[in-house]
Amino acid sequence: MATPWKDRYALRTEGMGSSVIRELLKLTEQPDVISFAGGLPAPEMFPVEEFRQASEKVLAEHGAKALQYGATEGYMPLRSLIVKQMARYGIHAREDNILLTSGSQQALDMIGRLLINPGDKILVESPTYLGALQAWSAYQARYVSVPIDQDGMRTELLEEAVRSGPKFMYILPNFQNPGGVTLALDRRMKLIQMAEQYGIPIIEDDPYGQLRYSGEHLPPLVLLDCDHLESRAGDTHGYFDGNVIYTSTFSKTLAPGLRLGWIVAPVDVIKRCVQSKQGMDLHTSTFVQMVAYEVAKDGFLEQHVRRIRQVYAHRRDVMLAAMERYFPEEVQWTRPAGGLFLWAWLPEGMNTAELLELAVQTQRVAFVPGHAFYPDGQGKNTMRLNFSNATPEMIEEGIRRLGVVLKAQMTGAARAERLVERVTA
Amino acid sequence: MATPWKDRYALRTEGMGSSVIRELLKLTEQPDVISFAGGLPAPEMFPVEEFRQASEKVLAEHGAKALQYGATEGYMPLRSLIVKQMARYGIHAREDNILLTSGSQQALDMIGRLLINPGDKILVESPTYLGALQAWSAYQARYVSVPIDQDGMRTELLEEAVRSGPKFMYILPNFQNPGGVTLALDRRMKLIQMAEQYGIPIIEDDPYGQLRYSGEHLPPLVLLDCDHLESRAGDTHGYFDGNVIYTSTFSKTLAPGLRLGWIVAPVDVIKRCVQSKQGMDLHTSTFVQMVAYEVAKDGFLEQHVRRIRQVYAHRRDVMLAAMERYFPEEVQWTRPAGGLFLWAWLPEGMNTAELLELAVQTQRVAFVPGHAFYPDGQGKNTMRLNFSNATPEMIEEGIRRLGVVLKAQMTGAARAERLVERVTA
Repeated sequence: MATPWKDRYALRTEGMGSSVIRELLKLTEQPDVISFAGGLPAPEMFPVEEFRQASEKVLAEHGAKALQYGATEGYMPLRSLIVKQMARYGIHAREDNILLTSGSQQALDMIGRLLINPGDKILVESPTYLGALQAWSAYQARYVSVPIDQDGMRTELLEEAVRSGPKFMYILPNFQNPGGVTLALDRRMKLIQMAEQYGIPIIEDDPYGQLRYSGEHLPPLVLLDCDHLESRAGDTHGYFDGNVIYTSTFSKTLAPGLRLGWIVAPVDVIKRCVQSKQGMDLHTSTFVQMVAYEVAKDGFLEQHVRRIRQVYAHRRDVMLAAMERYFPEEVQWTRPAGGLFLWAWLPEGMNTAELLELAVQTQRVAFVPGHAFYPDGQGKNTMRLNFSNATPEMIEEGIRRLGVVLKAQMTGAARAERLVERVTA
Repeated sequence: MATPWKDRYALRTEGMGSSVIRELLKLTEQPDVISFAGGLPAPEMFPVEEFRQASEKVLAEHGAKALQYGATEGYMPLRSLIVKQMARYGIHAREDNILLTSGSQQALDMIGRLLINPGDKILVESPTYLGALQAWSAYQARYVSVPIDQDGMRTELLEEAVRSGPKFMYILPNFQNPGGVTLALDRRMKLIQMAEQYGIPIIEDDPYGQLRYSGEHLPPLVLLDCDHLESRAGDTHGYFDGNVIYTSTFSKTLAPGLRLGWIVAPVDVIKRCVQSKQGMDLHTSTFVQMVAYEVAKDGFLEQHVRRIRQVYAHRRDVMLAAMERYFPEEVQWTRPAGGLFLWAWLPEGMNTAELLELAVQTQRVAFVPGHAFYPDGQGKNTMRLNFSNATPEMIEEGIRRLGVVLKAQMTGAARAERLVERVTA
């Protein structure tokens, strides 16, 4: 009798790395824990009534179509709606530049499948979106990282990283997850120029671009790239044969439970993505796409996004004010102009993974230790805090509790340090 | 300036192979073409009214939950419903043996990601499901194939194929797509025994298992495997630590536009699949899962499947009778006991890809040339016909038209052959 297949295929071990965030979310689902750990939108903001009306209308008028197989590329009216939405940011996409995906997570997976060969290097921000690392590690990617500061990726360090030969650069320019920082305009220009000079594509991941609460909108990389190429070519050579693949989602503007995102890319890249998607899930739910279109059309999406911006801006302000009040002065943090997250640095040597255990056990408050967002094992003294999901009252109370934990830990650490000094003196 | 990235990454060429079926479907969407090419369920059978009521109820009672992120494993009540459904076939799964997927196509992709290393061989039936070949070719799989006859895979040829060292065996035991054939019980036993003897897992793909129109239900491989292992072990060592991973879907029983399927597997395999799915699309649409659960529960699914069986059984009978009447006697075909498809063999030397062009152009009727379903370049004289989508009247008329094309082509071929004989005589 042969060895059981699961032993031979090493399936009994946990080789793929579990998602720290997902495991934590389970831990913090107890109702008395105030959690800043997830990345959940505020459920009270979901346009439930509009979804009821839209589902009713879609099934009443186009029931058979909504429940049938559909085109891999996506529901055409929804592709057109995205074209219009992109046009408002100055991006002249056509429908055949758009592919609907099962959340933008699938867009990342698809890009990995298309571009990554085992051992390829991917250039990422440090820290960066954990889900991208998860998606691409499945294709045996390696990472080269460039640290961020309050103005996003530190592009003065970019050229050295680019010279190591990455397959593509992955950038979250707006209110980055997890850092909450926004890439400055001159740094955007620098990225575009590097992409062209070295012939390396940029994956621009922009789930939060519409959720800006302060400051001026900055042009997306994909637009800067088109403009740059057009000015070099002397005229437009048609939209999108450039160096940027753009991806976004309805998860933060309508509802994440839809699992609905999209890719904007040159036509030949979209064609290849469509081939991949046929093998991945044939197409994204027709029903979901048609309902989302029905909700989003006729300007509702824009109105709704304005309401979300008001609510989240307030929550961000409440969190920042509470941190000023309750956090020890040694802790530093980002002040996001939009998005769902902010980022905090504790003094070097502190460990936020240990702190989390203490925070949940003693104060019933949770966050995500920042370590998981670094591809290179750094960030042990960092944490990500979400400000979109909890109410302002809960945010105030949760930050107060977290302040208690931080102070206790830092006093303990300081006392231990003084003790060590005395002993070694 | 560097070479543009798309040239360096060879993205401008079509290296991944497009789906023949999908390209054809586009061709045959013209309204005057009678198409047996797709694999579409009958849209008039979709329970649209039940979906309206279910969407209404889910959004009215659990709107915030339905639109929020959900667990990667799937919506727990739906997992429980699948457990009950499997139990009716004698399979004692628990909820943690079940993972909801974005269609069973995603289940196949996930299995490929989990098990296939570049160059690995996969043992498949010949012909087999095109979507599986598409999914696994992305992981650089190679194939070893065992031909089918009217009783499914010819297992007398299995051992030789198994000795070539395949990573897993992929079997569609019931009303196979594309062949329409059903694997005989003694052949099922042989497969189970080979899997154990050589320590090679079986992927059992069963989208049509509930759609049987004649003959007796046969036990799925996963059940035979459990029974076999239990009888060897002397007692049950808990459900599912065996050699079979089972996958199915709601696409044929409720609606394919949902994109909702599932995997049943040992707990440790499910855990690994969950990790993969986090990188692939985080989870399947919460909204879709909750609505599907609401439609399916309380026995509706079973009632509805009975109605589908009646309608499709009639369509199958109409198609088989029309083929007897209109097809030249040299053509042979399968007589499926269920499912959506039947399979026809034309005389050797005929080419169904050429025939399709003629059929669409001269008689406005379409089918799928069988060639694409063979991993090894065979089957040029075969075709797949779908009998679920067109009405009985359309089936009768379409088969009549196809008979005209076949007769014309075969007379032409015979004339050409006689001509060649005369010339060379």
